[in-house]
Amino acid sequence: MFVAMNRFKIAPGSEEAFEHVWKSRDSHLAEVPGFVEFNLLRGPMKDDHTLYASHTIWRSREDFEAWTRSEAFRKAHAGAGQNKPLYLGHPEFEGFESVQTVRP
Amino acid sequence: MFVAMNRFKIAPGSEEAFEHVWKSRDSHLAEVPGFVEFNLLRGPMKDDHTLYASHTIWRSREDFEAWTRSEAFRKAHAGAGQNKPLYLGHPEFEGFESVQTVRP
Repeated sequence: MFVAMNRFKIAPGSEEAFEHVWKSRDSHLAEVPGFVEFNLLRGPMKDDHTLYASHTIWRSREDFEAWTRSEAFRKAHAGAGQNKPLYLGHPEFEGFESVQTVRP
Repeated sequence: MFVAMNRFKIAPGSEEAFEHVWKSRDSHLAEVPGFVEFNLLRGPMKDDHTLYASHTIWRSREDFEAWTRSEAFRKAHAGAGQNKPLYLGHPEFEGFESVQTVRP
């Protein structure tokens, strides 16, 4: 299991607009090999921003990397630069490899 | 869906010891209502640390909060203070609420 997260600091008052951008786009993920689940996550609210994270679970790091080189990736990110006014600084990418899993 | 993450900065060379602490303890999570899945995640390596995150998926924020008040929580964290030498600074907690989900 591999988790790909992008952290976004959203200016106060822009939360709804930011969520709308995600909910109204087509992620083109459903058919991608190794894709397990995507969630847009709303995190803690700070003085100057609300933290959001795009959070995608992949079967493996290799599946994630293959997706970043695919046409589906290109389509999903076309026009993403238009949304920059909604967030502070740059989105921060972090990739995580699972080293231990516990299930019920 | 609610994601509870604790971020740990692990001093270079202490990665294996840190993973061992997690793998050798009993999380007491399996029977907790609303618990979905736990992963210990290894993130990017920086100059002065490797980022790790404990990553637990819960059915809801309410289930997570009920767990923090439970005997299972107390048992899982007994002795956690002993591991402080392995990490830089304090673990940083972030709770995330899902606002959008995509599945295959």
